Amino acid sequence: MRPVYLDNNATTRVDPAAVAAMLPFFTEQFGNASSMHAFGASVGGALKTARRQLQELLGAEHDHEIVYTSGGTESDNTAILSALETQVGRSEVITSVVEHPAILALCDWLEKHKGVTVHRIPVDAKGRLDVEAYRKALGPKTAIVSIMWANNETGTLFPVERLAEMAHEAGALFHTDAVQAVGKLPIDLKSTEIDMLSLSGHKLHGPKGIGALYVRKGVRLRPMIRGGHQERGRRAGTENAPAIIGLGKAAELALAHMSDEQTRVKALRDRLEQGLLQRIGNSFVTGDTDHRLPNTANVAFEFIEGEAILLLLNRAGIAASSGSACTSGSLEPSHVLRAMKVPYTAAHGAIRFSFSRENGEEDVDRVLEVMPGIIANLRSLSPFWKDKGAAKAAADTAFNPTYA
Amino acid sequence: MRPVYLDNNATTRVDPAAVAAMLPFFTEQFGNASSMHAFGASVGGALKTARRQLQELLGAEHDHEIVYTSGGTESDNTAILSALETQVGRSEVITSVVEHPAILALCDWLEKHKGVTVHRIPVDAKGRLDVEAYRKALGPKTAIVSIMWANNETGTLFPVERLAEMAHEAGALFHTDAVQAVGKLPIDLKSTEIDMLSLSGHKLHGPKGIGALYVRKGVRLRPMIRGGHQERGRRAGTENAPAIIGLGKAAELALAHMSDEQTRVKALRDRLEQGLLQRIGNSFVTGDTDHRLPNTANVAFEFIEGEAILLLLNRAGIAASSGSACTSGSLEPSHVLRAMKVPYTAAHGAIRFSFSRENGEEDVDRVLEVMPGIIANLRSLSPFWKDKGAAKAAADTAFNPTYA
Repeated sequence: MRPVYLDNNATTRVDPAAVAAMLPFFTEQFGNASSMHAFGASVGGALKTARRQLQELLGAEHDHEIVYTSGGTESDNTAILSALETQVGRSEVITSVVEHPAILALCDWLEKHKGVTVHRIPVDAKGRLDVEAYRKALGPKTAIVSIMWANNETGTLFPVERLAEMAHEAGALFHTDAVQAVGKLPIDLKSTEIDMLSLSGHKLHGPKGIGALYVRKGVRLRPMIRGGHQERGRRAGTENAPAIIGLGKAAELALAHMSDEQTRVKALRDRLEQGLLQRIGNSFVTGDTDHRLPNTANVAFEFIEGEAILLLLNRAGIAASSGSACTSGSLEPSHVLRAMKVPYTAAHGAIRFSFSRENGEEDVDRVLEVMPGIIANLRSLSPFWKDKGAAKAAADTAFNPTYA
Repeated sequence: MRPVYLDNNATTRVDPAAVAAMLPFFTEQFGNASSMHAFGASVGGALKTARRQLQELLGAEHDHEIVYTSGGTESDNTAILSALETQVGRSEVITSVVEHPAILALCDWLEKHKGVTVHRIPVDAKGRLDVEAYRKALGPKTAIVSIMWANNETGTLFPVERLAEMAHEAGALFHTDAVQAVGKLPIDLKSTEIDMLSLSGHKLHGPKGIGALYVRKGVRLRPMIRGGHQERGRRAGTENAPAIIGLGKAAELALAHMSDEQTRVKALRDRLEQGLLQRIGNSFVTGDTDHRLPNTANVAFEFIEGEAILLLLNRAGIAASSGSACTSGSLEPSHVLRAMKVPYTAAHGAIRFSFSRENGEEDVDRVLEVMPGIIANLRSLSPFWKDKGAAKAAADTAFNPTYA
């Protein structure tokens, strides 16, 4: 039986066309793009095309607004560290409680070791940002706001265009971690006030090890990695030509498949969700179902452990995830669901199914076929399921208030 | 006619066996190595093998002493920035005047903006480090020493094992940028006192966009890129599995070809050098010919411009370089040759030929065939060639003393 891959928010299969685009640059046109000779020069044109392909996906006004990095995490780190250096007299960062660790771990460290004040804006039960709290946090000390475009676990979208305008009214820079949004949503940066945007190749059927930071023309960037003059002096290190070219092809394909993502992929996701809720009691969808990525379903199954569900799904050839892959290994439920005050009894059993254009109806059929049995089986073994009321009360007591 | 690639210190062709090792991890085993499901788990074993392959090439005692990065530049930056944070009460850096820009540009910035004192140890006319000056610079304020293992332009080797011991006597950490040494020289880190070592995949027939920082067990590392828990919390970001696996294969191949590099490749290089000196007057080899990489020849042709030589070589299908690729585009002669006080009239005409195991006798034959004509042609057009004495005197006056 064909395995079912529904973990596309963790990483995606590189599109074979992107691999094909990369291949000649490993063993044929392998020269250093900065070199004078033909081996290097032949790479230059391909890099230019790749940059334009990514520019189009982002709707950026200029191709030099793209700075290539090693991935989303480096892009995120660069944006925040740069703003704290360039925004003289401003030492505060505003972010949300549901960001990716690439933002949160950096902010924790800045707060603890560098005297930076970090405002972490809360979300409501649907994962929506508290815009009033955001407005109050903005001020003359705000160096940068970093709010994700779409949450990796629930798919919830944030109104980044409006948030960017509000940031500018306070004289702050606005960065968005758009790692989950790029390739899944139409984006037109030139019509927004977003100053910086992070993206990652491997989230959109491009290769791992490559990402980009969009930096609006006129916004100063302080490099994080220093050395040679690559990327107009904004990111040193030999250009990763094959990966840049693979990302370009992936961007072109994402744009070509954008309407498929918005319609067919979304319909698959909706059918899966509705089917699961119909077949399985004590389950619900987390996140803002009115403003969500088209590909993401996060379903909480009460009174069982997500890790156990994943193991049994895996045995059935189905890949999904609980929490985000980057933080798995921890027994705590996801920081995103805790921030939404999803009760422990449900947050522990939350599963993320994330689709891509490579999924089909048969993938949904397969999950709907095996999931009711898996849940019933696990619940039959769960002491919490037998005494739901007591379990809920205990969980509420145990709820960790530092994440509330 | 087959093109002749003699620019292997800039970048190398990825070995087809390394590409073959990478390929399944783009489109088949593409899962996130941090994920729980089979798509992710299957990658784990391959990553473990790759780490062991690199460990063997380095002679490292433990495989967890390897931290993967996006390349040599990131590794270099991480090592120095980390030491300045972890070496409490120590705020000085010692390096050499002939380091790669990945070290020098960072040091310049640290000095200018972060109050770090940087000692740049000079070299003599053969490019050899002034060990007495190094000894004097070491002191209780030295946080870290960063001296390259082998110079990228001349191939000159530095006595890093002894320098590391001296650093330890002063309580300083010792880092070496070994980007040019790894894969070309036998290395056995466990028998040295080197604390940190940087390497880059694409310099040893591995892919671009991947490198590593060796960090001896017990040496604290402060991450430069923060986020998820990858690399034992020392470098965040989704593992670049295909590139790590490609680098592992490249390391295995480099070890297998090590004696070829030491004998056959070295003989090719020596034949080229001797042939050029025999055929072309007013030329000489730069660097320490007694202690050099086996693959590198840096030959200065007096009274002409290196860029012009490269253009004509390129027309003849031969790739070489002047200065390092990372800093080309500048009209100044290389900072390495200036530090060695090579007169401008010769430094401007210095060409680096860097071999690899993929070169053969026919490559040497071809360069020896075309080079005398190229040099004669350019010299016939050069006003400096016509009045060599006056040109030398003028160049000596113009010599930039800030780099002396």
